[in-house]
Amino acid sequence: MTMHSHSPVSGSSSIKNGWRQRGFNLLYHHNTPTARTIDLSLVCLIIISVVVVILDSVQSIHRTWAVSFRLIEWGITIAFTIEYLMRLAVAPKPWRYAFSFWGIIDIAAVLPTYLSLFIPGAQSLLVVRALRVPRVLRILKMTRYVDESGVLLQALMRSRRKIALFLFMVLTFAIVAGTLLYVVEGPKYGFINIPTSMYWAVATMATVGFGDIVPHTMLGRLVTSALILIGYSIIAIPTGVYTAELTRGMHQTDTKHSVPDSRICQSCGHIGHPLDARYCSQCGHKLGETGN
Amino acid sequence: MTMHSHSPVSGSSSIKNGWRQRGFNLLYHHNTPTARTIDLSLVCLIIISVVVVILDSVQSIHRTWAVSFRLIEWGITIAFTIEYLMRLAVAPKPWRYAFSFWGIIDIAAVLPTYLSLFIPGAQSLLVVRALRVPRVLRILKMTRYVDESGVLLQALMRSRRKIALFLFMVLTFAIVAGTLLYVVEGPKYGFINIPTSMYWAVATMATVGFGDIVPHTMLGRLVTSALILIGYSIIAIPTGVYTAELTRGMHQTDTKHSVPDSRICQSCGHIGHPLDARYCSQCGHKLGETGN
Amino acid sequence: MTMHSHSPVSGSSSIKNGWRQRGFNLLYHHNTPTARTIDLSLVCLIIISVVVVILDSVQSIHRTWAVSFRLIEWGITIAFTIEYLMRLAVAPKPWRYAFSFWGIIDIAAVLPTYLSLFIPGAQSLLVVRALRVPRVLRILKMTRYVDESGVLLQALMRSRRKIALFLFMVLTFAIVAGTLLYVVEGPKYGFINIPTSMYWAVATMATVGFGDIVPHTMLGRLVTSALILIGYSIIAIPTGVYTAELTRGMHQTDTKHSVPDSRICQSCGHIGHPLDARYCSQCGHKLGETGN
Amino acid sequence: MTMHSHSPVSGSSSIKNGWRQRGFNLLYHHNTPTARTIDLSLVCLIIISVVVVILDSVQSIHRTWAVSFRLIEWGITIAFTIEYLMRLAVAPKPWRYAFSFWGIIDIAAVLPTYLSLFIPGAQSLLVVRALRVPRVLRILKMTRYVDESGVLLQALMRSRRKIALFLFMVLTFAIVAGTLLYVVEGPKYGFINIPTSMYWAVATMATVGFGDIVPHTMLGRLVTSALILIGYSIIAIPTGVYTAELTRGMHQTDTKHSVPDSRICQSCGHIGHPLDARYCSQCGHKLGETGN
Repeated sequence: MTMHSHSPVSGSSSIKNGWRQRGFNLLYHHNTPTARTIDLSLVCLIIISVVVVILDSVQSIHRTWAVSFRLIEWGITIAFTIEYLMRLAVAPKPWRYAFSFWGIIDIAAVLPTYLSLFIPGAQSLLVVRALRVPRVLRILKMTRYVDESGVLLQALMRSRRKIALFLFMVLTFAIVAGTLLYVVEGPKYGFINIPTSMYWAVATMATVGFGDIVPHTMLGRLVTSALILIGYSIIAIPTGVYTAELTRGMHQTDTKHSVPDSRICQSCGHIGHPLDARYCSQCGHKLGETGN
Repeated sequence: MTMHSHSPVSGSSSIKNGWRQRGFNLLYHHNTPTARTIDLSLVCLIIISVVVVILDSVQSIHRTWAVSFRLIEWGITIAFTIEYLMRLAVAPKPWRYAFSFWGIIDIAAVLPTYLSLFIPGAQSLLVVRALRVPRVLRILKMTRYVDESGVLLQALMRSRRKIALFLFMVLTFAIVAGTLLYVVEGPKYGFINIPTSMYWAVATMATVGFGDIVPHTMLGRLVTSALILIGYSIIAIPTGVYTAELTRGMHQTDTKHSVPDSRICQSCGHIGHPLDARYCSQCGHKLGETGN
Repeated sequence: MTMHSHSPVSGSSSIKNGWRQRGFNLLYHHNTPTARTIDLSLVCLIIISVVVVILDSVQSIHRTWAVSFRLIEWGITIAFTIEYLMRLAVAPKPWRYAFSFWGIIDIAAVLPTYLSLFIPGAQSLLVVRALRVPRVLRILKMTRYVDESGVLLQALMRSRRKIALFLFMVLTFAIVAGTLLYVVEGPKYGFINIPTSMYWAVATMATVGFGDIVPHTMLGRLVTSALILIGYSIIAIPTGVYTAELTRGMHQTDTKHSVPDSRICQSCGHIGHPLDARYCSQCGHKLGETGN
Repeated sequence: MTMHSHSPVSGSSSIKNGWRQRGFNLLYHHNTPTARTIDLSLVCLIIISVVVVILDSVQSIHRTWAVSFRLIEWGITIAFTIEYLMRLAVAPKPWRYAFSFWGIIDIAAVLPTYLSLFIPGAQSLLVVRALRVPRVLRILKMTRYVDESGVLLQALMRSRRKIALFLFMVLTFAIVAGTLLYVVEGPKYGFINIPTSMYWAVATMATVGFGDIVPHTMLGRLVTSALILIGYSIIAIPTGVYTAELTRGMHQTDTKHSVPDSRICQSCGHIGHPLDARYCSQCGHKLGETGN
């Protein structure tokens, strides 16, 4: 039901009980108290690491704390490297893990520190660690959040084609509108080339409107107004698509819960009886027990 | 049904008829004409107080009216302090009131004036009194507004987990996008550190786009366009979630209202039978004709 | 079904056939070809008048065309004044017309020209004539647009209490957030007083973000980000409310059209037969004709 | 089901098997491998052509690549001209094609290059070629995208009258609000004439808020706040309309798909009986059991 439910490396039944099996259970399953403690520690390390990177970028904080931050960063990087190597060691199919979605994020979470030895400033990219948070959020598995995110993601997955079409539409509009403004306004008012005009058109259609580039001629303003109104109307598309899919998703969940298979009357075949019904609404025959 | 329906201090049946009981009825219930007059006076005082604070901040008005405003402020503060002490006195469980949601707002509504004796300017915080308005809006209980806000708030409550997930998603995006822009654009164009970049990323994804910080390089503009399009697509999530919950909420209200009276089983009294039901779903008794 | 369907002055059966009756039919009803010609001429005059006011405000056009524009303006004003006096003369209850919604717009559409004799520049207000357009759009009564706007307006009317609550919520937020920024940022960065801060807060929550006033301190930017995210979440409320009401409205229209009263089976009482059904789906009895 | 399903020139059965028939099949139908190869080549040419125009507008790239770009442009223009002439030659009714939607886009995709011989810079308009992309996307016919875009476009078509009414409403608001700000703020703060004020009003209502023109007076800011809140509320209209239509559209698709095959009347062949129907609604014949 969620994107985490199928681990890319599980399902292999060929592993014997040994240290690899125990390590696999600790790092990939989340059922034992020890595994949960590990997960929780990882979440803490990730959050500390991201906060350190963010604070380190502030000049005034950096001046005082640079050394401590550097130490924390290296400590966490080494911990994550060990974790990564262990995951690789205990996975039944190491290559499959290494090239899985989470495997790539795991390696991306340690590389910037090593890169920063050669390229100064690369450690800013450590914030990619923030992407590791959802992974270990699986410790919240017993909470309701996983279900909720399941509903949200399913609706998103079902909408993906329509959203893709929408983005394609926006892009086409941005190309045409950007060029129009480039021709009408010209480089004098900031529309220096078509890519810049397209950036402006995207920002305008999405109603961001930074104001760094604005039309100055009458004709340019007329075209802009038209573009805004079109954008204002098609902003409805992703919202409409997503709402419709979500309503459908929620309705199906409702229906699934309220009409089990046994709710068919054995006497007349009428279906759709409410969960608490005990007699058929069409023929008065006694219904079977719910869930049988 | 509404957030006001369960007073945090009611439900105690141990209070004898005495001055505390009468005071409790006046201040916590809203059924008698006297209680309504008190509520109405409080609403007027709150509105006057908020307007005075707002006007007092305008330099030109402040110069002429400072003294009158100061007098009004102290008068209302004393009135509210008396009200607060009385609420505390007549509540069956004073501590429970003091630490309840409304109790904290009530004390926050008087503290700034006293604080302003020591910290000049603290009285601006008196606008927190605006938060007291919904409290005394209970005088509108007989109107339809309480029901309406009940529907809105229930849908909001049911959406809270999904909205929380959405905010978490936005935050993760803001961290990653903010850092990316910080690395790509650098301090030269206003992206002076990651927190500032994150503030910019939030404002951009939410389509606010102040324009105080804008990308200037080609790559920065490309990343910004992508960020805008992603933000433009996920703006659909809170709207979709809320609409779906609200549709469900309204549908349930409709269903409850639309079941005709005759759909009550004459044998066991069960109600809510679908329009086409011919037998009671609880006891199997034949139902009367629809509309009879 | 629409806001035009009940004329505020019609419904009086006491008018004899005479010039007033004929004038009433011409100006208030829209069934005869002559009445339609009058309506169409009025629409043209309104559009010409609005375009003239808009063009007259452009300095370069004003210099050349000022006299012609002035003549057109006076001509149309006199025509509208005559129309207004005639409407007053033929209405069975003149006062009721004069103080009706459309009566006030009709007088507001001529007053600015007369005012401009005393107050230069008042004729800009003539654009209020644009509000007259929907009135005479009743000539489009036979088209589908009136039905459509009926659905839109009904949903708006049913949402009005929820929208009012939403605006009240936004206002409360704007007061609190505006004051917070006024306290945090201070007049140095443009937050010169609480009303200005409130204007900024409204523009920020609504994701307009002009950029004329922006936070500069770390704390101010943090509060702004929080305000944006809250605004981003509650933007869902009006959309959600309106969508839910509109879905309900459309569903009822669908239902109303597809389940006439006669669609109840005379034999077994089953209802909800589709429009094209000829036999009851429950007992096989022949159904009555649709619309009988 | 899609906007491409009825070619404006097909349906003619009078064409004999000859070179015109074969050319017609190649250029207008998309079933044979050769036709698909042609379509795919056209898509590639279109994308190359649009990318070239965009890159050519960047000064630094233009300096180095101008000649190559000019050659590619002329090559593609000649290819498209030949394609256009062939389409004209093989179409059974050439004039009908020439004035059809796609015919006009096809000619607009080649004209700018020829125009650029006389008017320098006209080749920027070549990006109109981007509009040709959906045309040849018919090669994706076998994928799910066409169905998806069908649902999106149908909902858009059903919403068109409501969206038109909405745009009319926005325009009326923009005229009135623009004039109000023009009168209140005056040319001193950028509201130099009513058209400029209207451009500002549209950008503000749509929450774009460039910030190039902003109110500076107290009254102007008050009016702006009101305008923003109104705009904030009516932004719900297109979203609501589109969502409601899309939900309806999807629901109908669902219903069509969920009617099991056995719900076909064995006597008259009528389909679409509700799940609980026991007799055919058209001929009164007893229906088979659900699911058999």
